[in-house]
Amino acid sequence: MRAEIVAVGTELLLGQIADTNARWMSERLADAGLDVTHHQAVGDNLERIVEALRLAAGRADVVLVSGGLGPTEDDITRDAIAAFAGVPLVFHAELETMLREKFRRWSAIGTMPASNLRQAYVPQGARWIVPDRGTAPGLALQLGGTRLYAVPGVPDEMQEMIGGTIVPELRALAGGDVIVSRIVRCAGMGESAVAERLADLFASSTNPTIAYLASMGEVKVRITAKAPSRAQAEALAEPVVAEVRGRLGDVVFSEDDESLEQTVLRLLGASGRTLACAESLTGGGVGARLTALAGASASFIGSAVVYTAEAKGRVLGVPENVLAGGTVTEACALAMATGARDLYGADVALALTGAAGPEPHDGAAPGTIWVAVADTTGFTHARGFVSRGERDRVRRWAEQAGLDLVRRHLEGVPLPASSLPG
Amino acid sequence: MRAEIVAVGTELLLGQIADTNARWMSERLADAGLDVTHHQAVGDNLERIVEALRLAAGRADVVLVSGGLGPTEDDITRDAIAAFAGVPLVFHAELETMLREKFRRWSAIGTMPASNLRQAYVPQGARWIVPDRGTAPGLALQLGGTRLYAVPGVPDEMQEMIGGTIVPELRALAGGDVIVSRIVRCAGMGESAVAERLADLFASSTNPTIAYLASMGEVKVRITAKAPSRAQAEALAEPVVAEVRGRLGDVVFSEDDESLEQTVLRLLGASGRTLACAESLTGGGVGARLTALAGASASFIGSAVVYTAEAKGRVLGVPENVLAGGTVTEACALAMATGARDLYGADVALALTGAAGPEPHDGAAPGTIWVAVADTTGFTHARGFVSRGERDRVRRWAEQAGLDLVRRHLEGVPLPASSLPG
Repeated sequence: MRAEIVAVGTELLLGQIADTNARWMSERLADAGLDVTHHQAVGDNLERIVEALRLAAGRADVVLVSGGLGPTEDDITRDAIAAFAGVPLVFHAELETMLREKFRRWSAIGTMPASNLRQAYVPQGARWIVPDRGTAPGLALQLGGTRLYAVPGVPDEMQEMIGGTIVPELRALAGGDVIVSRIVRCAGMGESAVAERLADLFASSTNPTIAYLASMGEVKVRITAKAPSRAQAEALAEPVVAEVRGRLGDVVFSEDDESLEQTVLRLLGASGRTLACAESLTGGGVGARLTALAGASASFIGSAVVYTAEAKGRVLGVPENVLAGGTVTEACALAMATGARDLYGADVALALTGAAGPEPHDGAAPGTIWVAVADTTGFTHARGFVSRGERDRVRRWAEQAGLDLVRRHLEGVPLPASSLPG
Repeated sequence: MRAEIVAVGTELLLGQIADTNARWMSERLADAGLDVTHHQAVGDNLERIVEALRLAAGRADVVLVSGGLGPTEDDITRDAIAAFAGVPLVFHAELETMLREKFRRWSAIGTMPASNLRQAYVPQGARWIVPDRGTAPGLALQLGGTRLYAVPGVPDEMQEMIGGTIVPELRALAGGDVIVSRIVRCAGMGESAVAERLADLFASSTNPTIAYLASMGEVKVRITAKAPSRAQAEALAEPVVAEVRGRLGDVVFSEDDESLEQTVLRLLGASGRTLACAESLTGGGVGARLTALAGASASFIGSAVVYTAEAKGRVLGVPENVLAGGTVTEACALAMATGARDLYGADVALALTGAAGPEPHDGAAPGTIWVAVADTTGFTHARGFVSRGERDRVRRWAEQAGLDLVRRHLEGVPLPASSLPG
C-alpha cells in the first residue's frame, strides 16, 4: 500500500516550524508496512489544499492530512476535504456535547468560545476519531480506492490518533509486509569510501535495500527489509548488517542507530568506568552532547572547558613549557587529558584542542585538531589531523573524532594515527 | 515571485530524519520577499523526482531542490534534473580539479574515491555553485520561466549556498521593493505578554508589519518594512523598533537579531571583563554556545562542567555542608559561581544547576533550575525557578536564564527574583 502525507499550515511555508509530524508519521507508516512515496506541505488556502488532496489521492492508497482542524478561521482542512469529496459539512450534536464536556472538565481554559463549534462539523459520509488530548476530532473517509485520514497538527494529538486508531486500521487493511530498517553508523571513513566497499552489495540488493546518509563526521548505512512479519524482515536484514559490519570493520560504532555519545556511555557503563573531558575548541560541546542523554551522570563526571592558554595551566596544570610550545599541539592535548583525568579523578579522560577558525590560533592553521585520551594505567594516545570547513564544522569534527577515540579505546580496537607531525 | 521546495531523500519518507532544511530555506526565502507555496518530498527515485520537478516548475517561478547531490549511486538529483530538462550530463574537468584539490587538502579523509567523480557532472546548460564546505557543487538552471536550483542536503553545505549565492541572486531577480526585517529579541517575558503590550501596534501596522515568534526561552518580534530602497525601508522600520523597545523595556536584549550569547560577549568586550561558568545540568551547553562565536576567547575563559556532586566539591570547592543540603539549591548555585570565578580568575562567573529530568535529581523535582552570578566585588545573586517540559527544554531554559542573568548584570538593569524559596 502506498501512502502520502499532506501537511497543512502556512507556518510551515514561512519556515516558522519544521514539519516534524511528517517524520513521526512516516516512521509509523513504514513500521506498519506502508510505502510512503511523497510528502506535501501547503498553506491555509482552500484551493491549494484541495489540489494537494487530488494529487495525493491520485497516486496513493492512503492519504494522511495533518493540521487545519483547529477552531479558528484559518483552520479549513474540514472544508477542503468536503470540497474535494463534493459533499457538504454536517453538524453533529454529539460532537458539540463532547466539546462542551471537555471545556467543562478543563475549567482552567474557560467557557467554550463559539468558534469551537466548527469542530462539530464533519464532511458527509466521514467517520470521526474522538480526541482524547485535544478538542479536534480526526476524520476518516473512503473515496474510491483511497482511504483519507485527517489529524490535528498538534504533535501529541496527532500521535494519539495515528498510534491509537489509524495505524491499527492500516495494519489490518494492509495485511501484507512489514518494513524493518537497520542503521549501521560509522566514524572515521568518508561516505564514498564506505560506498566503495559496499558497491556490489548496493548494486545487487533489492530486499533488503542499502542506502547511505552522510552527516558531519559520520556515515550511516541503512539496510531496509520488507517481509510479511517483523521477524522475517529482521531475518532478511540481519545477514546484510553482518556483512556490512564485516566489510567496514572497526569504523562501525553502532549497528542499531546509536549516536556516538550513546555508544560511549554504553561502553563506559558496561565496563564500570568513568569519563572526564578537557575541552578547548569545542567549548563544552562534548559535555553537552553526553549530558543530553538521561542517565549520563552514571559515567560522565564533568569537563574542564579551558578556552585560554592561562586556563589550561591554571585549571588543568598544563606545564608552562608545554604552553610555550603552543596549545594546538600533541603535547598540550596529552597534558590536558592527564590533567582532566587527575582533576576529576576519572578512569578515562578525553582532551580536545584545536584552531576552530576562521583565524589561525596560537600558530596553528584553522582546522587543525588534536584529540587525546588518557587512562589510569598511564596509557595515553593523541591524534592530530586537519578538518575541512568552517568553525562549526571543525568543532563538530573534533567532537566526533574525540568521542570516537574514546569509543575505540573502550572497545580495545586500534587507535587512529596522526596525520600531523607530533 | 512564487517559490517551491523539493526535498529528495528516501530517509525523509522513512521518517529517519525531519526535513529541517525546508524550514530553514523557507525562512530565508520569506525574508527575501518570496512566497513559498508548496513543499514536496520524494525518495531517491528518478521518475518521482522528475515528476516532482515538473509539478513544481509548472506552478512556481523558483524551484529549490535539496539533497541527492552526493557521490554515491543513490544520489541521482543531477540525473533527474538532466532528464527533466531533456539534456545530457556533461563532465567538467575543472570540477574534477576542484574535487581532487579538496581531497588533497583534507588529507584526513584519504585519497578521492572514483565515485566522487559523479560530482564533476553537470546538466548541459546549467551553472554550478562551487562548494566551500563540502564537495557537492550546487546547480542553477533556467528552464522557460522557472529558475531551478539544486543544493546539497547536508545542512551547512545547503546553508552556505542558499545564503551566499542563491538568496542574493533571487533578491536581484525580484527587483522591486527591498524588504528589511529587524528582529527585536526578548528574554524573560512570554509571547502573550509581549503581544499584549504591542496589541495596538500589531493591529494598526501594515508597513512595517509586526510578527511574533516564540522559541524556547525567548520571544522575537519581527518588524518588516518594504520600500523602494534599503535606506527608505530602514527609515520606516526604525521608529517602530524604538517604540517596541520602549514598551518592552529591559526584557529586550537585542534590536538587531543578536543571540543572547552574542549580546553577552559584546557587553563583556565593551567593559573589558571576562566570564567563566560552572555548569551542571547544562553539561557544557553554555560554553559551547559562547564559543560557537569566533573571537569568544577575548572574554570567555572557560567553564567547569561538574556533573556529579563529588566534582562540584573537588573541582569548584563547593563545601561539604552545602552539598549535603542538595546540589539543586540556591546555596549550591552561589558556591559554584564563586568557585568558578576563583578557579578561572574571571571577573564575572555564572553557575547553572538543576534537575533536567525525566527523574527528580538530588531531591529536586524535574524542571527545577538555579542560576547564579558572582563577580570580583563580592556581589552575588541567585535565581531559582521551575521550567516546564522535557529534558532538552529544561536545559535550554536554564541556558537562556543563565545568559540573561549575566546580560542584566553587565547592563546594570534589575536582576530577576526567585520564584522558589532559597
